[in-house]
Amino acid sequence: MKEVQLQRIQKFIAPYRVTRGQDFRLLDFHPGDTAAFKTEDKREARKMLARGVRWLSEQQEMLYAQDHWAVLLVFQAMDAAGKDSTIKHVTSGINPQGCRVTSFKQPSSEELDHDYLWRCSRHLPGRGQIGIFNRSYYEEVLVVKVHRELLEKQKLHPSLLTDDIWTQRYEDIGHYEHYLHRNGVLPLKFFLHVSREEQKRRFIRRLNKPQKHWKFSAADVAERQHWDEYQVAYEQAIRNTASEHAPWYVVPADNKWFARLLVAAAVVDAIAGLKLQYPVVAADKLEGLARARRQLDTE
Amino acid sequence: MKEVQLQRIQKFIAPYRVTRGQDFRLLDFHPGDTAAFKTEDKREARKMLARGVRWLSEQQEMLYAQDHWAVLLVFQAMDAAGKDSTIKHVTSGINPQGCRVTSFKQPSSEELDHDYLWRCSRHLPGRGQIGIFNRSYYEEVLVVKVHRELLEKQKLHPSLLTDDIWTQRYEDIGHYEHYLHRNGVLPLKFFLHVSREEQKRRFIRRLNKPQKHWKFSAADVAERQHWDEYQVAYEQAIRNTASEHAPWYVVPADNKWFARLLVAAAVVDAIAGLKLQYPVVAADKLEGLARARRQLDTE
Repeated sequence: MKEVQLQRIQKFIAPYRVTRGQDFRLLDFHPGDTAAFKTEDKREARKMLARGVRWLSEQQEMLYAQDHWAVLLVFQAMDAAGKDSTIKHVTSGINPQGCRVTSFKQPSSEELDHDYLWRCSRHLPGRGQIGIFNRSYYEEVLVVKVHRELLEKQKLHPSLLTDDIWTQRYEDIGHYEHYLHRNGVLPLKFFLHVSREEQKRRFIRRLNKPQKHWKFSAADVAERQHWDEYQVAYEQAIRNTASEHAPWYVVPADNKWFARLLVAAAVVDAIAGLKLQYPVVAADKLEGLARARRQLDTE
Repeated sequence: MKEVQLQRIQKFIAPYRVTRGQDFRLLDFHPGDTAAFKTEDKREARKMLARGVRWLSEQQEMLYAQDHWAVLLVFQAMDAAGKDSTIKHVTSGINPQGCRVTSFKQPSSEELDHDYLWRCSRHLPGRGQIGIFNRSYYEEVLVVKVHRELLEKQKLHPSLLTDDIWTQRYEDIGHYEHYLHRNGVLPLKFFLHVSREEQKRRFIRRLNKPQKHWKFSAADVAERQHWDEYQVAYEQAIRNTASEHAPWYVVPADNKWFARLLVAAAVVDAIAGLKLQYPVVAADKLEGLARARRQLDTE
């Protein structure tokens, strides 16, 4: 990729990239934002997305060949914000051998019997891989914080349920991501920021389309009651866990085409930063290759 | 257990328990130390061990019933220090359903493709369980530190192989254990401290007994060259990762009977600290039990 293209991408994502949480306020971000794009630019945005995905798919082969880095994309959002479809559009085209999506739903009883990172850690991507978490350990400071009764179900001894448990969790998650980064796993965290009105529209659309009914649950609508608490929980989580080595991206998600483009751009930028190359083959191995060629030629 | 017994145990283990590493020096600990026990007290020590193991086995049932805490026993040592036999003697008698030993040998290529905690995290004990690590993530700051070429094999990008990588690892391990403790997993770490001379005697004994030959590898003897480097690595690891929530125990290991007794005593003390009780059954459940009994009686 040309330096000038990369600069353009960086400029595009900069307003949405949070690496220092201190002064972060979710209110400063608007779910309907589409940067310099207008609705009539949708087609152009889709073309750019396609180019980005093609480039990512080439890079992923180098990531795999080089075998040093793993990329971890974490997706968090309210229901119907477009997690599934964003993951689909940004990663389709990447060789599935080098890319695996793990969806974290309600924890099983075996999972509840372990520390909360346990179920996620085992699905971390290996070197050369892109791992995608559809929900993640962040649920521990989101849904579990909004629904305190879930914390009770985690079987922690009462002495561990201290007042600063959320602060502890932010800290532990921060340490964990720092450790991951030091060991070659690069976490990028996406909050797909949808508005309450747009969620309502999408729910109604699901109800109107029989083929979308499987995606609908009455509980999702009930969850809307807790909208404001969730917004606070997201703000707190981002404020306390954004860092240079594990940035958050606040992705305006009322327009799916825009959300997808922004996510792809963020991934492109992160992978471009690795300056991947195919491993240089050593002289003795080159000689071996030449020998192999001669052998095949004289066969 | 009576308070006075517990106090006696605490007094016994106190000199070997390290919770603040700052001034820790391995030289202050003598592999041949047997506290107030003399060689002729060996039989008495064995009886005490048997009592401790019986008590542990009862407690483990409560641990399991209560389902709040997990206990993680980490064993590290030079070869022939007696890790296997200590684990065997301290845990035999505990219901294997609540107790699992994991031995960490040379990492597989899948394991090397992940962050170094990955292979250990997945074997962490669940609530109600005692997990035993025969070697552990501490190998990352022991054998890997002594044999720098192993670090090269970990496929980390050269930019991550910084001068302070060991300091980073101590820090990350410290954070990890703190996180575990906050989530109900109690790590206890044992360094079986054997002398160079005693190791030599044990190696020769292995060579003399055909039924012990399988335990012998010529590489183990070659490793003796690095004795002093290992001692420094152990000292550094203990100094930098001992804490109130994840103590190290420096166990004099030239006398196996003493090492076993001390390890058992440390585990007894830690579990006694949990003040385990069988869960109190709620009134409505008691009523249900009474109904069940009536039903069985009239059957």
